[in-house]
Amino acid sequence: MTPAVLIVGATGYAGSELAGLVDGHPALTLAAAMRARPDAPAVPAGPSTRAVEPLDVARFADVDGVFLCTPHGAAAPLARTALEAGARVVDLSADFRLRDAALYEATYGAPHPAPDLLDASVYGLTEHARAEVRTARLVANPGCYPTSILLPLLPLLAAGVVHADAPIVADSKSGVSGAGRAPSEVTHFGNVHDNFRAYGVGAHRHTPEIHQVAGTDRIAFVPHLLPCERGILSTLHFAPAAGCDASVARGVLDEAYAHEPFVTVYPAGPTPELRAVQRTNTCHVSVHDVGPVLTVVSALDNLVKGAAGQALQNMNLLLGLEETLGLRSPAGEPEQGKRS
Amino acid sequence: MTPAVLIVGATGYAGSELAGLVDGHPALTLAAAMRARPDAPAVPAGPSTRAVEPLDVARFADVDGVFLCTPHGAAAPLARTALEAGARVVDLSADFRLRDAALYEATYGAPHPAPDLLDASVYGLTEHARAEVRTARLVANPGCYPTSILLPLLPLLAAGVVHADAPIVADSKSGVSGAGRAPSEVTHFGNVHDNFRAYGVGAHRHTPEIHQVAGTDRIAFVPHLLPCERGILSTLHFAPAAGCDASVARGVLDEAYAHEPFVTVYPAGPTPELRAVQRTNTCHVSVHDVGPVLTVVSALDNLVKGAAGQALQNMNLLLGLEETLGLRSPAGEPEQGKRS
Amino acid sequence: MTPAVLIVGATGYAGSELAGLVDGHPALTLAAAMRARPDAPAVPAGPSTRAVEPLDVARFADVDGVFLCTPHGAAAPLARTALEAGARVVDLSADFRLRDAALYEATYGAPHPAPDLLDASVYGLTEHARAEVRTARLVANPGCYPTSILLPLLPLLAAGVVHADAPIVADSKSGVSGAGRAPSEVTHFGNVHDNFRAYGVGAHRHTPEIHQVAGTDRIAFVPHLLPCERGILSTLHFAPAAGCDASVARGVLDEAYAHEPFVTVYPAGPTPELRAVQRTNTCHVSVHDVGPVLTVVSALDNLVKGAAGQALQNMNLLLGLEETLGLRSPAGEPEQGKRS
Amino acid sequence: MTPAVLIVGATGYAGSELAGLVDGHPALTLAAAMRARPDAPAVPAGPSTRAVEPLDVARFADVDGVFLCTPHGAAAPLARTALEAGARVVDLSADFRLRDAALYEATYGAPHPAPDLLDASVYGLTEHARAEVRTARLVANPGCYPTSILLPLLPLLAAGVVHADAPIVADSKSGVSGAGRAPSEVTHFGNVHDNFRAYGVGAHRHTPEIHQVAGTDRIAFVPHLLPCERGILSTLHFAPAAGCDASVARGVLDEAYAHEPFVTVYPAGPTPELRAVQRTNTCHVSVHDVGPVLTVVSALDNLVKGAAGQALQNMNLLLGLEETLGLRSPAGEPEQGKRS
Repeated sequence: MTPAVLIVGATGYAGSELAGLVDGHPALTLAAAMRARPDAPAVPAGPSTRAVEPLDVARFADVDGVFLCTPHGAAAPLARTALEAGARVVDLSADFRLRDAALYEATYGAPHPAPDLLDASVYGLTEHARAEVRTARLVANPGCYPTSILLPLLPLLAAGVVHADAPIVADSKSGVSGAGRAPSEVTHFGNVHDNFRAYGVGAHRHTPEIHQVAGTDRIAFVPHLLPCERGILSTLHFAPAAGCDASVARGVLDEAYAHEPFVTVYPAGPTPELRAVQRTNTCHVSVHDVGPVLTVVSALDNLVKGAAGQALQNMNLLLGLEETLGLRSPAGEPEQGKRS
Repeated sequence: MTPAVLIVGATGYAGSELAGLVDGHPALTLAAAMRARPDAPAVPAGPSTRAVEPLDVARFADVDGVFLCTPHGAAAPLARTALEAGARVVDLSADFRLRDAALYEATYGAPHPAPDLLDASVYGLTEHARAEVRTARLVANPGCYPTSILLPLLPLLAAGVVHADAPIVADSKSGVSGAGRAPSEVTHFGNVHDNFRAYGVGAHRHTPEIHQVAGTDRIAFVPHLLPCERGILSTLHFAPAAGCDASVARGVLDEAYAHEPFVTVYPAGPTPELRAVQRTNTCHVSVHDVGPVLTVVSALDNLVKGAAGQALQNMNLLLGLEETLGLRSPAGEPEQGKRS
Repeated sequence: MTPAVLIVGATGYAGSELAGLVDGHPALTLAAAMRARPDAPAVPAGPSTRAVEPLDVARFADVDGVFLCTPHGAAAPLARTALEAGARVVDLSADFRLRDAALYEATYGAPHPAPDLLDASVYGLTEHARAEVRTARLVANPGCYPTSILLPLLPLLAAGVVHADAPIVADSKSGVSGAGRAPSEVTHFGNVHDNFRAYGVGAHRHTPEIHQVAGTDRIAFVPHLLPCERGILSTLHFAPAAGCDASVARGVLDEAYAHEPFVTVYPAGPTPELRAVQRTNTCHVSVHDVGPVLTVVSALDNLVKGAAGQALQNMNLLLGLEETLGLRSPAGEPEQGKRS
Repeated sequence: MTPAVLIVGATGYAGSELAGLVDGHPALTLAAAMRARPDAPAVPAGPSTRAVEPLDVARFADVDGVFLCTPHGAAAPLARTALEAGARVVDLSADFRLRDAALYEATYGAPHPAPDLLDASVYGLTEHARAEVRTARLVANPGCYPTSILLPLLPLLAAGVVHADAPIVADSKSGVSGAGRAPSEVTHFGNVHDNFRAYGVGAHRHTPEIHQVAGTDRIAFVPHLLPCERGILSTLHFAPAAGCDASVARGVLDEAYAHEPFVTVYPAGPTPELRAVQRTNTCHVSVHDVGPVLTVVSALDNLVKGAAGQALQNMNLLLGLEETLGLRSPAGEPEQGKRS
């Protein structure tokens, strides 16, 4: 009998994307897709057309896994309920991403809703946390921007490719689905279409998360809003350590991700683009010498590898399933970079 | 009697934009809008609907000023003809932007077409070259990316706000009109819409121009292609000199541009966006502290301040007219940043 | 001394467009741009950057003309106040478009807010109401869809080109600015971008307005929402009267609009497109034989000829000014159709 | 052993979409994805990343089915070769859509390339040709516009819902992928983005195909180009027969498509939208009373149900497979209309 999961918050972008993925999963049953709040829309944002039910925490006891796609603050109490009911939990909110309750409070402007659960949670950047995730009961699914930045950056930092004292610039650009499904000035067509701007400069909530996982606060993160629906492209720039160039950095990434199905490192020359990663769980990465700096370009789908797809990778591991189930591209292999 | 000008290359994006501006200019007559090549389209890209005539260099003698909106290589011989005919010239191509014929050859893959004219030409970043432009006969109109980068950067470099040894990252994003009006893989709707990518990484032809004018090759320039038609937003990141922060940098820019009608420096907080500068000749600039770096955001319309508008500023000066004629916003004053 | 006008509701799309037009008007002073409601945004949607003030009806007495850009229902009481203060009024809302208070109530679900003013108002489809507008004190500015449909249709109906008993299909497509500036499901980027749909099928509030002015209810009006910001393209289809074809219909339109600066009738072949009319006050029209029907294509900018531009035409007439002041294209002549 | 197929023309939009579908098909092997011409791009438009090989007709003998995704004129000789090699053929070009070689020549400006094969071919509007397709060897896959128009129209014509003498208007709107992958003025971003226009008015090559299958030339077909990548929405308008209204028409369609997995008839009220059908093989249909006419709205993905998806339906039948294999939505059931 296949394991059963349920989704809380299935009407938003990430939850709806997740419902679509679980619907197509060969070894998981979607027991329920629930609204997080009574006033949430009655239908998902897409692509799943499954009817969405009211929140019913009593049903947490009937499933093996619970996905939480709620705003921060709302997820932690639901996570506790689910854990007490015996379910494994992947939380797509920010509630368990920061290891430090005080930093959470400084960042989110409210006391951490469940500080006692912080130690039990694992930060689920899957490629770098596989062993911990397998034995965890509560996984904090990484933010979309941090995933796009940390996947290329962690191996380069570990290998000493980055100059030890220099700033690391993470100039990121995201489609507007990252701003959520709620109508607002930010998501109004007239403010997005044919427009482009930076936002949250010096103050975005993903900054502490990036610093925490990278182990350094030398990273300057500046997000921008693209006039498209889905995808993040992050351009990283940093002075290399002595003796390091793009070729060295590419070698480090090649080795780190040689056997990873969801990270593709480009050969010298071409660069990732959003179209190549949209609706896939793959992160594409390229490295370039640009005068005084190394420039790393990283692209992923913020709703898949940056949210629902990575969450499913983590749930697969939590439930003892093959990590790639339900996430392979149609051809059964990860996408390759196609354009120069 | 008002001075007369003509435009060569009036069917492309920049030339057509320029035709529209000159049509609305209160003190210039547009004597002719000419095709650069026999096979160019018979109608402008917009907004002008003026009929475009074949190239006729004999008519250069009848006008006071000639705008050259041709590919690089084709402009220089036309510039010579126009100068010999007694006209002032603003060249929107790259032919006279680089001061060094050898660097031109290395960058554009062909010998410089008129090296003897290089000394007579002036690099027309108007706000920083006003006096030279007034007395020049041949102005090299700056590239769109360089304009967006140099306007904020030059005063900061001059004032010592930038750390002396550190890299300066110029992460730029442009609408697709920068790629020109010719159909190609690059400009195909299916490759631009809902897409985003870096291009020319480490190899874009505007890099030597930026280095030359800034007086340093520590600038790492990485351009990206936005899924919109017009506008450039450049995000600059650099380690500040000791004692310098965003407030200091903003003060430097405020002072540099206090009396400039076409550069708007934002107060602390808001950031420029493309919509605020599209179809204006204004460059909007903001400065931010972002952890270890200062981040400067600069936005302009690549077809106006980055091409046709700045060319008209320069032509106004060449012909002894008020610099802002034909370029004011409807309200008679430069746009102000509007959104936070 | 130039006449003075003020705008109520200057923060929405139409009001903001109007503020930009009046700012550039050579013979009108914009005395004030006011918010319609205390909670309206403090800044206009663009392009004007003029500061917007609170509503102050006392100032109606200081101006010659008042533009009302408010929701229906809110305009009528303001119109009364303005008329009593001696100002001429152009109302861009729906309050005075329908001549019959009962039809207004059936359409808008509330009693007409000022039925006694209906007789004093003129329906300002300028090209067809010039004489009445000149002597009026209150002008109902037509809806954007009706303008795009009635400009081509009225002369064809009058000339008997349309088959007397057959349905007239008005299949219209509008950019999303027609849905207003308020954030909503309808205007959310994710629901507009890369999407297209019909809406209000059989129930749109512009239907009674179209029927009233055309003098027939044989018109089937079906609006659609385009994934772009501004512009309406209406495609009309009807069986022609005996002996009538596209050539006859084109002749009728050519004659009707031969001297009209803001209506351009195309020769046989090319069709209008949104880009040719965006940010102009011109309506472009073409006529085609398509098997059993005549097809008429009409394009205009919903915010200019469909709202603010036509309102300014009307105000010019109300105040005894040249009708085209402030509305000419840069070249001083109406746009011509450019592409085949 | 699963049947094997190959695709000729796998680099264009339709061929590439088809390669992606066959890659994910549980009971078909994709033996080869071939270029149609030596100078075709080396990589598919997406989503498949499979390497594309040169055309090699010798391999037609090794497969059970051949998909032809070539320009018209080029398909017919390849079809002959494939049939002689013993393969079943689905031709996505126009070569076998018209039953009459003279009409083909009048429409496509060249003699029919294989008139002797016309009688052997079947027009594969699957829902209306299932029995013939099952026993055919050569299927002409319908055009994208005709599919969107004929699926709703055929049952209504057969049931006598349409007034017998009145025109039927088919006002269709398509994303730009319908114009193909080749760079051109038509597909240039600057001519599509933020634009909308009618084209081929009175002269589109799909008109004879629509007339032939509907059995009447009373249909006025007018296509328009949408500023989005994929999807067709057709709005049909016609006077109903006496006693017929939307409710009657909806009943006819409900009955016709009650057991069809790929046609969804909406209840009264909501209308289809492109987002609901993009990347699915489903056609959504709604019916409305609009004054003197019935209005039918039909939406499908031009690259799936309008091309590759329907081609796969047909190939499934040709090869004796379950018709829906490889075409189901993730949830295993057709999409339902979601928004009102």
